[in-house]
Amino acid sequence: MKKGCPFGTHRVIEPKGVLPQPATKIENDMEIYDNEILINVKTLNIDSASFTQIKEEAQGDVEKIKEIMTNIVATRGKHQNPVTGSGGMLIGTVEKIGPALEGKTNLKVGDKLATLVSLSLTPLRIDKIKEVRKDIDQVDIEGKAILFESGIYAVMPTDIPENLALSVLDVAGAPAQTAKLVKPGDKVVVIGGGGKSGLLCLYEAKKRAGITGKVICIGHSQKSVDRVNQANLADVCFSADATNAVEIMNKVREVTNGEMADVVINCVNIPNTEMASILAAKDDGLIYFFSMATSFTKAALGAEGVGRDTTMIIGNGYTKGHAEIALQIMRESETLRKIYEELYA
Amino acid sequence: MKKGCPFGTHRVIEPKGVLPQPATKIENDMEIYDNEILINVKTLNIDSASFTQIKEEAQGDVEKIKEIMTNIVATRGKHQNPVTGSGGMLIGTVEKIGPALEGKTNLKVGDKLATLVSLSLTPLRIDKIKEVRKDIDQVDIEGKAILFESGIYAVMPTDIPENLALSVLDVAGAPAQTAKLVKPGDKVVVIGGGGKSGLLCLYEAKKRAGITGKVICIGHSQKSVDRVNQANLADVCFSADATNAVEIMNKVREVTNGEMADVVINCVNIPNTEMASILAAKDDGLIYFFSMATSFTKAALGAEGVGRDTTMIIGNGYTKGHAEIALQIMRESETLRKIYEELYA
Repeated sequence: MKKGCPFGTHRVIEPKGVLPQPATKIENDMEIYDNEILINVKTLNIDSASFTQIKEEAQGDVEKIKEIMTNIVATRGKHQNPVTGSGGMLIGTVEKIGPALEGKTNLKVGDKLATLVSLSLTPLRIDKIKEVRKDIDQVDIEGKAILFESGIYAVMPTDIPENLALSVLDVAGAPAQTAKLVKPGDKVVVIGGGGKSGLLCLYEAKKRAGITGKVICIGHSQKSVDRVNQANLADVCFSADATNAVEIMNKVREVTNGEMADVVINCVNIPNTEMASILAAKDDGLIYFFSMATSFTKAALGAEGVGRDTTMIIGNGYTKGHAEIALQIMRESETLRKIYEELYA
Repeated sequence: MKKGCPFGTHRVIEPKGVLPQPATKIENDMEIYDNEILINVKTLNIDSASFTQIKEEAQGDVEKIKEIMTNIVATRGKHQNPVTGSGGMLIGTVEKIGPALEGKTNLKVGDKLATLVSLSLTPLRIDKIKEVRKDIDQVDIEGKAILFESGIYAVMPTDIPENLALSVLDVAGAPAQTAKLVKPGDKVVVIGGGGKSGLLCLYEAKKRAGITGKVICIGHSQKSVDRVNQANLADVCFSADATNAVEIMNKVREVTNGEMADVVINCVNIPNTEMASILAAKDDGLIYFFSMATSFTKAALGAEGVGRDTTMIIGNGYTKGHAEIALQIMRESETLRKIYEELYA
């Protein structure tokens, strides 16, 4: 049996020397290397940006969607949309585990799992597309996939419905990072707190900041603000334009009695909210950018431009135990589970 | 006397509601608000990207360069290049200090200072352009500028020549952040350690990591590697391609006996070095991206893609005492001062 690299570089066909994600073509032969896991795939959960593009290209025609998806995998060996560059995740069952992983993984053959690494780097073979669920970006297939040694995954819980679990796992990094960053007594601002990841961040922030802390939610629509208030997910919640830095600063100053935030978590998926995040934080505060719309240079030059010594962290979608932390919220909070079931499952 | 906002929003003409940096036009009337400092400007140090563009547009003609610069300031009220968006810094003497700053600043009238906030947000009036020094991006003028209350600056040292001090102040954030992050015993990798900011980071890293630590420099050219080795600025120094993540990982593994780096500092100004930084670090390591070529999404998705729990920090050009820390290196290290004088002053 062939020995593999933990990151899967052994499957990169071109260009040579890069990792599987930036590669344009990877090997999707399903004979496993010694440190790989073979998965019998049930469902692909295509990244929203990618699936929107595919649907448009297919003009909504299901047979055409199937053709485009099959072509992507045939060309690249993985489901990485050539236009958006993005992938998605998959659900399946473990079919084979490479011998080099013995004692290193707690997975066993037959386990049902969701991969938490992107489809844009996962070797995939599609034998048949069985069903396209256009409105929730999910596609049932017959096929196989490979999980690399460094690839992260979550064993599917038995007490949480599959669609609900998938929605939670999709944003699992955010609440887990919040749990690590927020300390008792902290004043925490969650920008975009009414959204999919923001709601989970609010819950963790309140739990960690405790009764001596204060959790402030800034939402976009009045509807999302009302939802947060009714569910009692924040100590204060208001609606504001996150691109208006001065307005956000003044409102945060008001509700913190001039102290400003110890931790700012940015979950809002629109550009130009870096400055609002910086001005909402204390001078020695911490800002966690989970938004993929964050501009590195706008954040870096923005803080310097106003002489702020804030620590600004690039949101890492992975942290140890993130899947468990996020799923646990659905068990702990009936209110949040209901909101999630209504909006995202 | 009119009361000003600490960030200078009172001078924004259009669009309303934004901060002075993203504004397209700010007021450059030199009657100060109560929290502003008036500077008698001697020299503009134009950002390298901006000055290159201006020289090209002027086809090297000095009179044309003067005309372009004058037009920029007349149109925007600040020297923000409309093509590159960037500014630069200035040197001058304090002419007037707003009464609201009394007790808040240690500046006094007559002090010679360099502004450490960008010219792209600094109100400026040019009365006359006296000399254009094309090869070092410096322009002597007669004119005035305004420093906002939140604006950072450094009083020019009397024991370090002006050009040397300017070069050091230009990258002051990097060594000061290094000083904050590196702990005794740490293994530290500086990617781009042979460059302007990298050299200062190496010096601070060695000082903080101490004899139980290990400082590893990855340079680009053999020439820069030889320079670092001769000056004994790192424990190990080698040349490698920072876009080749796997090569960098293997070399760092070799020189750390498999332990990898506690802290990785990225100072290399080319794209696609995020993955090398991530793979050079320990799983719970810390990466400090000082490079402006860093892509937020490549870093975020890259770490997730290989299941790494690294903390990734957006380089902040400002941290408390950064100018003092950086200038002090020139006093402490004769070797580094010589290299800097030869290369950058």
